[in-house]
Amino acid sequence: MPNYFENPKSKLDLFRQKMYIIIYGVNTPAGKAFDIGLLIAILLSVFTIMAETVEGIDHTYHKELIVLEWIFTIIFTLEYALRIFVSKKPFRYIFSFYGIIDFLSILPMFLSIFITGSHILSSLRILRLLRLFRIFRLIEFVEESSRLKVALMASRAKILVFLYTVLIIAVLIGTLMYYIEGPENGFTSIPRSVFYTIVTLTTVGYGDMVPTTALGQFLSMILMVTGYGIIAVPTGIVGVEVAKEVGKRISQQQQDKDKDKEHNRLNGIVCSLCNQEGHRDDAQYCYNCGHHLNT
Amino acid sequence: MPNYFENPKSKLDLFRQKMYIIIYGVNTPAGKAFDIGLLIAILLSVFTIMAETVEGIDHTYHKELIVLEWIFTIIFTLEYALRIFVSKKPFRYIFSFYGIIDFLSILPMFLSIFITGSHILSSLRILRLLRLFRIFRLIEFVEESSRLKVALMASRAKILVFLYTVLIIAVLIGTLMYYIEGPENGFTSIPRSVFYTIVTLTTVGYGDMVPTTALGQFLSMILMVTGYGIIAVPTGIVGVEVAKEVGKRISQQQQDKDKDKEHNRLNGIVCSLCNQEGHRDDAQYCYNCGHHLNT
Amino acid sequence: MPNYFENPKSKLDLFRQKMYIIIYGVNTPAGKAFDIGLLIAILLSVFTIMAETVEGIDHTYHKELIVLEWIFTIIFTLEYALRIFVSKKPFRYIFSFYGIIDFLSILPMFLSIFITGSHILSSLRILRLLRLFRIFRLIEFVEESSRLKVALMASRAKILVFLYTVLIIAVLIGTLMYYIEGPENGFTSIPRSVFYTIVTLTTVGYGDMVPTTALGQFLSMILMVTGYGIIAVPTGIVGVEVAKEVGKRISQQQQDKDKDKEHNRLNGIVCSLCNQEGHRDDAQYCYNCGHHLNT
Amino acid sequence: MPNYFENPKSKLDLFRQKMYIIIYGVNTPAGKAFDIGLLIAILLSVFTIMAETVEGIDHTYHKELIVLEWIFTIIFTLEYALRIFVSKKPFRYIFSFYGIIDFLSILPMFLSIFITGSHILSSLRILRLLRLFRIFRLIEFVEESSRLKVALMASRAKILVFLYTVLIIAVLIGTLMYYIEGPENGFTSIPRSVFYTIVTLTTVGYGDMVPTTALGQFLSMILMVTGYGIIAVPTGIVGVEVAKEVGKRISQQQQDKDKDKEHNRLNGIVCSLCNQEGHRDDAQYCYNCGHHLNT
Repeated sequence: MPNYFENPKSKLDLFRQKMYIIIYGVNTPAGKAFDIGLLIAILLSVFTIMAETVEGIDHTYHKELIVLEWIFTIIFTLEYALRIFVSKKPFRYIFSFYGIIDFLSILPMFLSIFITGSHILSSLRILRLLRLFRIFRLIEFVEESSRLKVALMASRAKILVFLYTVLIIAVLIGTLMYYIEGPENGFTSIPRSVFYTIVTLTTVGYGDMVPTTALGQFLSMILMVTGYGIIAVPTGIVGVEVAKEVGKRISQQQQDKDKDKEHNRLNGIVCSLCNQEGHRDDAQYCYNCGHHLNT
Repeated sequence: MPNYFENPKSKLDLFRQKMYIIIYGVNTPAGKAFDIGLLIAILLSVFTIMAETVEGIDHTYHKELIVLEWIFTIIFTLEYALRIFVSKKPFRYIFSFYGIIDFLSILPMFLSIFITGSHILSSLRILRLLRLFRIFRLIEFVEESSRLKVALMASRAKILVFLYTVLIIAVLIGTLMYYIEGPENGFTSIPRSVFYTIVTLTTVGYGDMVPTTALGQFLSMILMVTGYGIIAVPTGIVGVEVAKEVGKRISQQQQDKDKDKEHNRLNGIVCSLCNQEGHRDDAQYCYNCGHHLNT
Repeated sequence: MPNYFENPKSKLDLFRQKMYIIIYGVNTPAGKAFDIGLLIAILLSVFTIMAETVEGIDHTYHKELIVLEWIFTIIFTLEYALRIFVSKKPFRYIFSFYGIIDFLSILPMFLSIFITGSHILSSLRILRLLRLFRIFRLIEFVEESSRLKVALMASRAKILVFLYTVLIIAVLIGTLMYYIEGPENGFTSIPRSVFYTIVTLTTVGYGDMVPTTALGQFLSMILMVTGYGIIAVPTGIVGVEVAKEVGKRISQQQQDKDKDKEHNRLNGIVCSLCNQEGHRDDAQYCYNCGHHLNT
Repeated sequence: MPNYFENPKSKLDLFRQKMYIIIYGVNTPAGKAFDIGLLIAILLSVFTIMAETVEGIDHTYHKELIVLEWIFTIIFTLEYALRIFVSKKPFRYIFSFYGIIDFLSILPMFLSIFITGSHILSSLRILRLLRLFRIFRLIEFVEESSRLKVALMASRAKILVFLYTVLIIAVLIGTLMYYIEGPENGFTSIPRSVFYTIVTLTTVGYGDMVPTTALGQFLSMILMVTGYGIIAVPTGIVGVEVAKEVGKRISQQQQDKDKDKEHNRLNGIVCSLCNQEGHRDDAQYCYNCGHHLNT
C-alpha cells in the first residue's frame, strides 16, 4: 500500500482514499451507488451503439446518438483516469484483465476520429459487466462463479476429449458429405461441409445446406441422432462434478457424526497416574497403566 | 370471514355460502364439476378465438364464431361477478393475481366494441388454466410446483449468472459478427446480429441469417459448440438442487436411524454392584455380574 | 389352458403345441430363429413400401415391388392365422394390443384392392417390432423398459405440469406474436403462431416463420432462452427418479450392513433358563433372568 | 520381443531400438517432440486438403497445395515404413486398427495418380489424431475414455432400446406425415418423411420441409415436444451410470471406514481375570478390573 493510504498527508490524499473506497469498494452505500450507476451507463452506452447500427433509428437520430456516445466515452475516460489515479499500484491495474478491458472500451471511440466506423467496436465494453457481478449479491455470485471455475478445471480433460471427438467427427463426416453430395448440391468445399456437420451435430440446423442424395440424408440422420445423444456428454461432465461434490458433502457429514460418536463414547477422564486420555466411557481402570480411575 | 358465512341470516346468505363452496372449493362433487366445466369452457373459448384468426374458417363461420365468443364472454362475466359476490373479501380477490387475470380475460371482448380486433387478446385467458392445476390431483400438483418454486429460488443466483453470461456472450459475439459479416450478408444491425447469436447459441437455428464469410462461419461454429455445451448449465443447476435434496434425504434417514439406535438400544442405567453400563433397554439383570438392575 | 395343450390327442394337437413354442416362445433355437426371421421380414416389407413411394425407384421396379409387398402380406397373413390357430385363448390374442397391430399390418394391403394407395399404411407394421425387443437379450430389455415405465408413472404429475406449462406458454406467446407480427409478416393466424412458438421453444427452429419486428424478435429471444432453460425440466424429472433409485440402493446397503452389525455385536447364545436371545457379545449373565450364560 | 531389442547386435539394431522408443514411446522428450510434430503435420495436411476444395484458394495456389500434399504424404509414408521397420511384430502393427488407418491416410494420394479427385479422401487421416490423445496428459485421457467406454458398454441395452424407439417413431410418424402432407407439400416419399421426422425429433429443424396442413402441423408439434422430452433419455442413461459410480464410491468409503473402526479401535483380547472384552488396541491393562493384559 502506498503511504498516502495509511497515512494521508494532504487533502488530495484524503480525496484519493475516499474515491478508492467508492470505486473499488462495495460495502458502502456510495460504493454500491457508483456500481449501479456504472452498470446503467454501460448498458445505455451499449444500447446507443446498437441503435446507431439500425438504419431506421440512425437516419432520424444520427447526431443525438453520436453526442450520446461521446458523453458516455468521456464519462468512462474520466472513470478510467480516476481508477489509475486512486489505485494503490497503478501499473498493476493498467495491465490487469479488467484494466485492459476498461482501456479497450474507450479506445474505439477515439480511434473513430481517424478510422471511420471503428467506434462500433465500443459495444465490446459489455465485457465491463463481468466486474459488476458484485452489484447484486457479492458473495453468492463470486462463490457460484468460482465453483463453476473449479468444476470446469476439474473436468478439463473430459472437456478436451469431448472437443477433440467433436473435431474428429466434424472433419470425418464433413469430408464424407463433401464426397457424397458434392458442390452441385451446395457442399461447395470441405470447410463448408464441416460447417454443415457442426450445424447438424449441435442440432442448430440452419437449413441453408441440406443433403439431397439418399446416402447424404442417411449419413445426416445418423449424425443427428449422434448429436442428439452426445449432448448427454457435457451434461454428464457437469453431473459427475455435481455428484462428486454431493459425495464429499455426505461423507463429510458422516465424518462429523463419527467424530461426535467417538467423543461421546470415550470419556474425558485423564488418568491421574500416567495422564493417559481416551478411556472407554465405562472404564474402571486406566488401559495404559492399570491405575484405578476416579470417576 | 364476513358474518354471513358463519351465521347466515337470509336465503341469500345461504346461497352465497353454497356458491362459495362450489366456486372456490375442490373437494365436493359440485366443486369438481364446476372446475371441469370451467376448464372446458376456457379451452373452447380459446379455440374459438384461434379459429377466428384462420382465414379459411373465419370466412365460412364468421357469424357463428362471434356469437360463440360472446356466449363464452357472458359466461365468464357472470362467473366473475359471482366470484366477487360470494367472496368473503371481494377487494382482496379483485386485486389478487387470479382476480386480475379473470378480469383481463373478459375485458378485450367488451373493448372490441370500440376497438376493432382487440378481442383477439381474449385468448390470453388461457392463463386462467393456471388456477385449474387442482382439477387433476390437487395436492400432488401443488407440491410439485411449489417444490419447483423452491428449487428455482434456491438457484436464483446461478440462474442470474447464467443469464448474465448469455447476455454478455450475445452482445459480444453479435458485435463481432456484425463487424465480420456486415450488412451486405444480412447482418444489417447489431440488434439483428445479437438475435442471430441467440438463435445460434440456443441451438434454435432458423437459418434466416447465415454467415457467408470464412471467419463468420468459424466464429459461428465456436458459438454452436459453446451453446451445445452451455446447455449443461441449466441441467446442472437443476441437478445440484436434486442432488441436494437427495443428500438431505439420505442424511435424514441416517439421523433417524442413529436416533433409533441410541434411544432404543441401550439405557443409561449403571449396575449398582459392578458399575457396568450399556445395558439393553429391556434388560432386567446386569449382563456383566448378573445383579438385578433397579429400573 | 385348452386341453389340447396339456393332453394332446391328435397329430394336429401336437403340431399346435410345437408351433406354439416356436411362435410365442423365445428360449428354443427354433423360437429364436422364427423371431429373427420375422424381424427381417418386417424390416424388408417396410423398406419395400418405402421404396415404392420414391418416384425414381417406383418407376423402374413398380411390378417387382408390388409382387414383393404381396409376398410379405401373404406371409404375415399366414403367420396371423397361425397365431390364432395355436393360441390357447384365440380371442384374447385377437383383441390384445399386439393382436390388433398384427391385424392392422395386413389390412391395408387387402384394402388397397378397393381403395388405391391405402397399402402405403402397411408401413405402420413397423410397430410389430415392439414385440421383438426380446430377440436381443430378453430379460435385460424388458427390465429396462419396465423400469422406464415405472419412472414415467412415478413422474406422471411432473410431466403433466410440464406439458400444461408448455401449452400455456405456447398459446400465450403465440397470441402475442400474432398481435405483434401480424399476417403481413407470415404469422397468418394464432394456430400458426402457436406452431411457431412450439418450434422455437423446443429449439427446433425451422425458419419458415421468422419475426421481423423488433418487438417480435425481442420476445422470440426471451422464448428461446426460456426453451433452452426449460429443457432442464425433463432432464431434471428423469434425474430425480434416478437419484431416488440410487438413494434407495444406498440406504438398502446401509440397512444390510446395520443388520450385519447387530448380528455380530449380539451373540447367538440362548439363555438355558429363560430361552432369551440377543445378548451382548461380552455378556456374562442373561439380561432377562440374571442366569449365568455358559459361553 | 525380437532379439534385436533385448540384445542389439549391430548398429542397425541400436537404431531400431532408439527409433522404437521415439515413435511408440511417450515419456522421453524425443518421443513427445515426435508426437507433437506428428500432430501438427496431420492438422496441416488436413487443412491443405480442405483448402484445395475451396475454389477461391485453389484457383490461386493450386500448384503450391499439390506440392504441399505430396510433401505431407511422403512424410507419412516414411513414417509408416519406419513404424513397420522398428516394430517388434510388424504384421501385428500392419493389421491393427491404427496400422490400417495409417495406411489408409497415405493411400488416397497415391491412388490420385490413377483416379482424379480421390486424394480428397486423404482428409480422413484426421482419424490419426485418435492416437494422439496421449500428447496432452496420457493417463488422465486414457482413463477418461476407458471410463466412457465402460459406461457405454454398461448402458448398451438402454442405448439400443433408445435407438429402437427412435427408429419406430421415425418410421411411424414419417409414414403418417407422408399420408397427411403428401408429395404436393414437399413430402415426396416416405424416406424423405422419415428424414423430416428425424430432423424434427432431434430438434435440428432444417426447415427445408415444413408441414402446411393443420393436421401435419399438429402432429409435428407433438413430435417436437416428444423430441424435446426424449432428450432426457440419453442424459438419464449417462446420469444412471454417474449415480452408480458415486453410489459405489460412497459405499466404498463407508466400508473402508467400517474396517478402520474394527481394525484399529478394539482388539480381540479377553481379560484373563474378568473375561472382559472390547479393549483398545493399545491397551496394556483391562479397563474393567485393571488386570494386566497378556498381549
